[in-house]
Amino acid sequence: MTNDQQHAPTATVTTPTDREIHIERVFDAPRDRVFAVYTDPALIPEWWGPRGTTTVVDEMDVRAGGSWRFVMRDPDGGETAFRGTYREISPPERIVQTFEWEGMPGHVSEETATFEDLGERTKVITTSIFHTTEERDGMLGSGMEGGMNETYARLDELLERLADG
Amino acid sequence: MTNDQQHAPTATVTTPTDREIHIERVFDAPRDRVFAVYTDPALIPEWWGPRGTTTVVDEMDVRAGGSWRFVMRDPDGGETAFRGTYREISPPERIVQTFEWEGMPGHVSEETATFEDLGERTKVITTSIFHTTEERDGMLGSGMEGGMNETYARLDELLERLADG
Repeated sequence: MTNDQQHAPTATVTTPTDREIHIERVFDAPRDRVFAVYTDPALIPEWWGPRGTTTVVDEMDVRAGGSWRFVMRDPDGGETAFRGTYREISPPERIVQTFEWEGMPGHVSEETATFEDLGERTKVITTSIFHTTEERDGMLGSGMEGGMNETYARLDELLERLADG
Repeated sequence: MTNDQQHAPTATVTTPTDREIHIERVFDAPRDRVFAVYTDPALIPEWWGPRGTTTVVDEMDVRAGGSWRFVMRDPDGGETAFRGTYREISPPERIVQTFEWEGMPGHVSEETATFEDLGERTKVITTSIFHTTEERDGMLGSGMEGGMNETYARLDELLERLADG
């Protein structure tokens, strides 16, 4: 493990408007590889979700109009699920999808992930747009940021394993 | 048929922000009745959709978190469908739901219908919030307004039949 991974970079989270969350994070892998990992159902359980959780891909039809649904089990055995629809899949540049937590059905946000080519590294910019400020603030208050940084650190580790492999 | 129905009132459509559509329409029936018609799966085929279309209720679980899905057949036999999730059902005052046309999956708007008690009449105020201005403008450009006024005129007629019955 390199020094970089011991001190994993944190994501930059900003709120450019009252109903948006903007996240930037750099990964130490080329863009094609990062995009491939984001869109591979077999790899989702390797990185998606905070540490200690187990994620099962129930559905992941990676094409415009296709559905996705991930079931996440926490260390105590509690289960919850997330779902949405892919609106755009433009390899290796952009994924647009909806995002909904089944614990609060009908609160649907739109997420755009843009993959910026930095040569051997990739910047992933994720913008989430909510219908209302209340929904946006609910997401910010949900502990999202800690879980997200753990997810990104797991993604760092997976990308390192794939580079070694 | 009274003179009022021959000259059915048109709905007032405004765009208070760049991602909202606000619609107001008065119906000649008391609030409890109008709310009941909006939430009765057996009555949806009697009024939902423009004239000449036939609507089948595939799913309509009228409770917070419940799903709805309506299949609409046009006069030429073409079929399309609409779906969403109820977020709030507060009789006889408010319904909050998501709305998605399956022809453009993942473009989800949030609709709030508020039923205002005017004694023997009811004002229904519907606010649709979109994630983006483009989605809002797409809805406005879809011929929505004509179809909506036909739907509301069919609702006038159904309410009159129920009052006579």
